[in-house]
Amino acid sequence: MEDKTITPELYVMGAGPGDPELITVKGYKVLQLTNVVLYDNLANKQLLDITREDCEKIYVGKRPYGDYTSQERIHELILQKTTEKGMVVRLKGGDPFIFGRGYEEILFAREHGITTHFIPGITSMQASGFLDIPLTHRSVSESIWVVTGTKKDGRLSADLRLAMQSNATVVVYMGMKKLSEIAQTYIDAGNGNIPAAIIQHASLPHQRSVRGIIQDLPRLAEEQHLTHPAVIIIGWVADENLSY
Amino acid sequence: MEDKTITPELYVMGAGPGDPELITVKGYKVLQLTNVVLYDNLANKQLLDITREDCEKIYVGKRPYGDYTSQERIHELILQKTTEKGMVVRLKGGDPFIFGRGYEEILFAREHGITTHFIPGITSMQASGFLDIPLTHRSVSESIWVVTGTKKDGRLSADLRLAMQSNATVVVYMGMKKLSEIAQTYIDAGNGNIPAAIIQHASLPHQRSVRGIIQDLPRLAEEQHLTHPAVIIIGWVADENLSY
Repeated sequence: MEDKTITPELYVMGAGPGDPELITVKGYKVLQLTNVVLYDNLANKQLLDITREDCEKIYVGKRPYGDYTSQERIHELILQKTTEKGMVVRLKGGDPFIFGRGYEEILFAREHGITTHFIPGITSMQASGFLDIPLTHRSVSESIWVVTGTKKDGRLSADLRLAMQSNATVVVYMGMKKLSEIAQTYIDAGNGNIPAAIIQHASLPHQRSVRGIIQDLPRLAEEQHLTHPAVIIIGWVADENLSY
Repeated sequence: MEDKTITPELYVMGAGPGDPELITVKGYKVLQLTNVVLYDNLANKQLLDITREDCEKIYVGKRPYGDYTSQERIHELILQKTTEKGMVVRLKGGDPFIFGRGYEEILFAREHGITTHFIPGITSMQASGFLDIPLTHRSVSESIWVVTGTKKDGRLSADLRLAMQSNATVVVYMGMKKLSEIAQTYIDAGNGNIPAAIIQHASLPHQRSVRGIIQDLPRLAEEQHLTHPAVIIIGWVADENLSY
């Protein structure tokens, strides 16, 4: 370090599912203090307004299936900005350690002598509650299996077949491109009638959703033009007639 | 309603894993306004200091395996207090819709004409990040299976055997009484060497934990006197030598 007064410090922080008020109090306070924010396109831009006027805000978004900032470039920026300016926040939609690659950034930073901090965030599936879908419900579902649709090796369908053998609520992140494959896996197992839902932009004013049975979900999503970012929830907790 | 100016209103809200600053900004603001709080023993008592001086604070805790307030009694209080005082917060440790029975309270309230609101909370497993355990990590684990140890029908072991067929991170809530059974299920399947950890009082100053391989966890927990409330995390994400 040229400037001895600068302590390189990285906060890897979850922004929550969308609604800026669903960030944690701890995250809010740290955002108010930081010198630099490296932010995702899934983190609500309104959160940038919390920062100091001289805070440097750098977009490092990754659009699924589109343009993106490479992980290497993000690492470079972490190193450069913490060295130059000390305190840096890496603001990620949802929770950094649930499909967020946040721990990779922590490990990279530590290897370069940067002090690291972790602040969790509400992850998108938790916003299913805004659609009246609890993730567990007594004697309906007592476990949750959270998977990602980005796997390339066919493991998604294998995991779904395992999950169907329990009463787990299945949650698929980044699964919209796999929706037909997912529905077909349930249909093939004779489970096409399990309730399911898709929530896009969960917790935001422009939240949109469809509900039905899993075999109808691809058609419903197409009719309603639902697309990513969205979570898919499959299980009897998505039944509109739950009782207490 | 005798008093026409009173609107019965229930907020079912997550308090987060322990650290009072891990409540959401939205939850914090609602707590400042409410007339009544019905709180758990898992919700941090420091959060009660946020409330107005004349806010009525009622303990409705359920201690696992000990004294508890029945769900029926909680429902009675929801009805009585929203009718008497209007705005009531039901403050629950973690997230109300992840093993929290929060949706039962929402359904009960609606059936009685009470307006309901849901505010999610950081759930305990997310605090594993404070122990340097991400819930997912690229090419190590790309799914998470969250189960509860309170099942009485042997389904826990069945779910664990299914989970072992994938690379899912397994998280067990309320599983400390089942720790030996859990470890034995892994050993029997030839998976006793999978890394695992227990975190008690996650995110709090008195947070305690053990790490090792799943077959050693019962012994380690006993030596360190770890007990509930705790989460058990099993999977290669708990390996101390993750790389990026």
